[in-house]
Amino acid sequence: MILRLRKGFAPEDLNAVQALCAKLHYQSRFLDEERRLLEVCPERGLGGAPDRSLFEDLACVESFVSGNEAPELHLSIPGREETVVSAAGAVFGGGAVSLIAGPCAVEERGRLAEIARAVRASGAVLLRGGAYKPRSSPHSFQGLGEDGLTMLQEVRSEVGIGIVTEVLDPRDVERVGAVADIFQIGSRSMTNAPLLKEVGATKKPVLLKRGQAATLREFLLAAEYVLAGGNSEVILCERGVRGFDDVTRNLLDIGAVAYLKQKTHLPVIIDPSHAAGRRDLVTPLALAGLVAGADGLLVEVHPAPSEVHSDGRQALSLDAFTALAEQARAFINLGGRRLVEPDPAPVSV
Amino acid sequence: MILRLRKGFAPEDLNAVQALCAKLHYQSRFLDEERRLLEVCPERGLGGAPDRSLFEDLACVESFVSGNEAPELHLSIPGREETVVSAAGAVFGGGAVSLIAGPCAVEERGRLAEIARAVRASGAVLLRGGAYKPRSSPHSFQGLGEDGLTMLQEVRSEVGIGIVTEVLDPRDVERVGAVADIFQIGSRSMTNAPLLKEVGATKKPVLLKRGQAATLREFLLAAEYVLAGGNSEVILCERGVRGFDDVTRNLLDIGAVAYLKQKTHLPVIIDPSHAAGRRDLVTPLALAGLVAGADGLLVEVHPAPSEVHSDGRQALSLDAFTALAEQARAFINLGGRRLVEPDPAPVSV
Amino acid sequence: MILRLRKGFAPEDLNAVQALCAKLHYQSRFLDEERRLLEVCPERGLGGAPDRSLFEDLACVESFVSGNEAPELHLSIPGREETVVSAAGAVFGGGAVSLIAGPCAVEERGRLAEIARAVRASGAVLLRGGAYKPRSSPHSFQGLGEDGLTMLQEVRSEVGIGIVTEVLDPRDVERVGAVADIFQIGSRSMTNAPLLKEVGATKKPVLLKRGQAATLREFLLAAEYVLAGGNSEVILCERGVRGFDDVTRNLLDIGAVAYLKQKTHLPVIIDPSHAAGRRDLVTPLALAGLVAGADGLLVEVHPAPSEVHSDGRQALSLDAFTALAEQARAFINLGGRRLVEPDPAPVSV
Amino acid sequence: MILRLRKGFAPEDLNAVQALCAKLHYQSRFLDEERRLLEVCPERGLGGAPDRSLFEDLACVESFVSGNEAPELHLSIPGREETVVSAAGAVFGGGAVSLIAGPCAVEERGRLAEIARAVRASGAVLLRGGAYKPRSSPHSFQGLGEDGLTMLQEVRSEVGIGIVTEVLDPRDVERVGAVADIFQIGSRSMTNAPLLKEVGATKKPVLLKRGQAATLREFLLAAEYVLAGGNSEVILCERGVRGFDDVTRNLLDIGAVAYLKQKTHLPVIIDPSHAAGRRDLVTPLALAGLVAGADGLLVEVHPAPSEVHSDGRQALSLDAFTALAEQARAFINLGGRRLVEPDPAPVSV
Repeated sequence: MILRLRKGFAPEDLNAVQALCAKLHYQSRFLDEERRLLEVCPERGLGGAPDRSLFEDLACVESFVSGNEAPELHLSIPGREETVVSAAGAVFGGGAVSLIAGPCAVEERGRLAEIARAVRASGAVLLRGGAYKPRSSPHSFQGLGEDGLTMLQEVRSEVGIGIVTEVLDPRDVERVGAVADIFQIGSRSMTNAPLLKEVGATKKPVLLKRGQAATLREFLLAAEYVLAGGNSEVILCERGVRGFDDVTRNLLDIGAVAYLKQKTHLPVIIDPSHAAGRRDLVTPLALAGLVAGADGLLVEVHPAPSEVHSDGRQALSLDAFTALAEQARAFINLGGRRLVEPDPAPVSV
Repeated sequence: MILRLRKGFAPEDLNAVQALCAKLHYQSRFLDEERRLLEVCPERGLGGAPDRSLFEDLACVESFVSGNEAPELHLSIPGREETVVSAAGAVFGGGAVSLIAGPCAVEERGRLAEIARAVRASGAVLLRGGAYKPRSSPHSFQGLGEDGLTMLQEVRSEVGIGIVTEVLDPRDVERVGAVADIFQIGSRSMTNAPLLKEVGATKKPVLLKRGQAATLREFLLAAEYVLAGGNSEVILCERGVRGFDDVTRNLLDIGAVAYLKQKTHLPVIIDPSHAAGRRDLVTPLALAGLVAGADGLLVEVHPAPSEVHSDGRQALSLDAFTALAEQARAFINLGGRRLVEPDPAPVSV
Repeated sequence: MILRLRKGFAPEDLNAVQALCAKLHYQSRFLDEERRLLEVCPERGLGGAPDRSLFEDLACVESFVSGNEAPELHLSIPGREETVVSAAGAVFGGGAVSLIAGPCAVEERGRLAEIARAVRASGAVLLRGGAYKPRSSPHSFQGLGEDGLTMLQEVRSEVGIGIVTEVLDPRDVERVGAVADIFQIGSRSMTNAPLLKEVGATKKPVLLKRGQAATLREFLLAAEYVLAGGNSEVILCERGVRGFDDVTRNLLDIGAVAYLKQKTHLPVIIDPSHAAGRRDLVTPLALAGLVAGADGLLVEVHPAPSEVHSDGRQALSLDAFTALAEQARAFINLGGRRLVEPDPAPVSV
Repeated sequence: MILRLRKGFAPEDLNAVQALCAKLHYQSRFLDEERRLLEVCPERGLGGAPDRSLFEDLACVESFVSGNEAPELHLSIPGREETVVSAAGAVFGGGAVSLIAGPCAVEERGRLAEIARAVRASGAVLLRGGAYKPRSSPHSFQGLGEDGLTMLQEVRSEVGIGIVTEVLDPRDVERVGAVADIFQIGSRSMTNAPLLKEVGATKKPVLLKRGQAATLREFLLAAEYVLAGGNSEVILCERGVRGFDDVTRNLLDIGAVAYLKQKTHLPVIIDPSHAAGRRDLVTPLALAGLVAGADGLLVEVHPAPSEVHSDGRQALSLDAFTALAEQARAFINLGGRRLVEPDPAPVSV
């Protein structure tokens, strides 16, 4: 590693670097006369991310100028295969694209089954729906909780469709995991390390949403928490970042999709519904995301968007979702990939 | 118009509203008991944008709650046809998509002709290239100025390709207009009202780039300056907004493309090169923009990106541009639109 | 409440509003001929925040145009007194200003006691220091955990200074609460509802930091989670928001301090250290915050900033902190408030 | 200079570097085995900003890692004295603080004289007021133009107070300069290079406002345009940047004030009125700015804020301005600086 030291660092700053080198058994030498480029390397072995982070924490280290980055687990590097996440018939990555659709929140059992059947018929392989809803206000509807989980479980068996649902609290991971085929970690939880560690200790896929103002580095490091726990099944979900214009609810970062597909071996999907925040823009955003490389979509669908207690403005009608799925299929095929279709016989998942 | 007044406005605030009503010959009445919703309407006629803006400027007016917006010129409203901008063989809007390609800055005559021939052969109908370059630093390369314009004019005749080039200074409009088929107004000039008025007084199409942190309302109002001057040929160009992550140079606002296509009758294009700031992301951004509804692309292309004095990192090679044009053609056709192709016989433009 | 409905809402949207009115026993009537302003009011009683949020969730409701906001618990309204939070000798609000100082993370027992004594001698009434550290990377130093808590407890008794320390995981609330005089909820946890509810169920003061891109409404609603749980002792902490310039680590929102002091009855402090991210700007930011109305400071201090494992670049030296406290005292007095001084006799807290 | 090259640059990238070295008579050598750190130095002399910018433009150059920055004119470096700008009795910098106050736009002659007398009596040494107003919409009030300039000139003589007024168009510089003691360049014009060059060719002080989303580097480079033209009298004005919350109109970057005071030798002022966008927050922002190091204030004042055609919501009343000036005086004195007071005898300026 080559460290670039801050301009005008003090002698005691350098002592701190040397103390750390001694502790970790690293050697060091300056590369330039100004004494701002310092090469440090382990006496044995390769060093790695934990060491790197200790050097990074030193007060006088401005940045790393060396290209030999620590081989973090999320990075796409030679010798690492693309991660393909499969769950309940869905496949994300490796040329396979899957659609996840459903209501924002689970609200009524009959309605949920109706939506599940309809989105399955249109091409969705997984049903989304929140039993636990993260809300800005404690006075807003927080989801049906355990009753919602029960409904999801029943609809899962009845309709034969896998479930993606959010877990908010590390104490709920086991309970939610009994129902979910994929855990959803929402944007508000992207920086919730205890929760990330808890789902990282399971073997169930994790759909991780980007925080509202998270850099892509921070997003990837959140995924790293799950990967470092031993769970390699992470799907990254871009859902728009905080912008300065209220025309859309969030600003879909389409460049992030293209960048993440290069930088990491993990599958990437988008949530055009939360990005747009209005149903009239969901379809163009969804198609743009797929063309930029996304391995799937997470879309809000509701047969009667006007009755919804949470985020009704952005839900597609069933017909609009059917039309979206058809267009998506054509664009995906043109790009040389395939849309994973639901099994025609609704066997139990 | 219905005005929503600020909470707790003072009596003198209301006097100011009434004075304005008297001056403009408007009548007013409160719609609610709280006296916060005030309807104002002209005694004769329809009022309009200039009146609206005077009410908007009053201290106690919080917002307009009425739906009958002033019919600003950029708005897509019933009875207004979609604007189709044509120039030198290019067509933007009405189902036609055109590609503009070329170097960031005009630097060397032979090289410019080579690029022009190559991009024309690959499918571009217009050549871009700056003779006047807006730069952050006065010490950076500012373009070749008049010599650059001369080169553009020579290459235009020689290769038979129309020219898009930037005008920075209202005093240069006539001179640049003698060469350009389309004026480019850069992001740094989006708020330059004297310049917008000057190009608004011509009859030549204007490619207007969104400011780096402009809301879509501000962007549309900049277009309104050109339209209000009597020039109806405006092409809106989304080129990415200022984000908080340096992975991409700017954050391409793909939702803006979809929104603008609904809100306005003007054609919309994207500049994936300045948005990405790195060539490896240009192609996915370009395709995503087209699928979201863009009527064209403005792409930086250079046969030797490493020799470029300005923005070389984001220029596509000639081969990469050829590949992009092919993919673009397929996606445009799948969406039921057509890519405008250069005339096979290089007649003079 | 007066609801402003979206332009062109569909008949079924209106049915949904009326169904909700029926369910909640509200009456409704349109206020305008365009049928976009709908007044809804409860048949009995006052309605309130939970009802409001249900209406807000309806698809066709664009916004509230009425001024009679639900009386949320954090709001400063006539009849509610300013909240003054006291803990271990510190007082925040009601004209009293307190300083909290200490290292970012608890790292070494002797060093911690040294810092505690020094900052106490200079005017700090509370010691800050993290045993559990939220970090972007799982490979970064995560704090000493329970060993850190033990050190804090020992130093608390030994030096006679109260403790502010972060709790990250709802399962740790009891354990951290056994040591902390004030719980710190970090920016990364501002949207962690299970954690907010857990500290809301205690009677211990909560120092709540604003999320990196949280609006002030979202920040206040996070406080509302704690207040709604029955814990009225919340201190709001502005620590800078995500900006687009890397000169400072975050962008200290000084307007937020002034606004929050008006909008809410809760005390407000600032963290100039995380805002600046560099020690040379900490003192001017701290003084600016106090002059804008802040009721306290949370400052990183370390006797040897260059040896620190976390955030050393922004820690003030002991001498610099002493100088800051002196200037702060003078500015606070000039503004007619008082700096709470540590008890000269270091009795046990 | 040491250049850090991009990872995986191509051989032709390096050829371009070497071609540039040959052209400029620089020598080059690699500092590291990875061949990513390249030292380039002029065969004779020191190089400088223009050379640096040419290297920076090369496609394979990622950044500069060397500390020997080109000595740009705005930088505070050893041997350069702090710039003190004086005009019509006002002094900015060198321990002197001046207040500029007045209406947003010049609207009525009698009213303007009244404001001028009142703000002068309260402590303002300069009158602000726009004859040319930059507005988002072409349908909004654009200022009185030449009539406004005439009014300013008359009030200047009559009241004995210097004038700060905006110039928008390079063609108006001479005309505005005949009236203004200080040119104001608004945020929307910060990137208007032709305008900056035009005022840079005069000898009159320039009050340069930061663009709404300009980095501090970009802001300083805009000042560099004026300085490079030979005009050394530049006052930097922080007026808030675009944020994501609409509680304040802009987000006052108080850290920018502290940073700029270190980085540059130029005086720095703030505009708390445009930052806040609401009069109730203007005073705390103004005081915070002064305490953070600002050398002056630019404040909107109007005797009847509710009658104003532009930005009335943020104007202070005359009484509120008097109170602000008194508090400002006390805080400035406590910080060891002095407020420049208007000459008691209203001699002609």
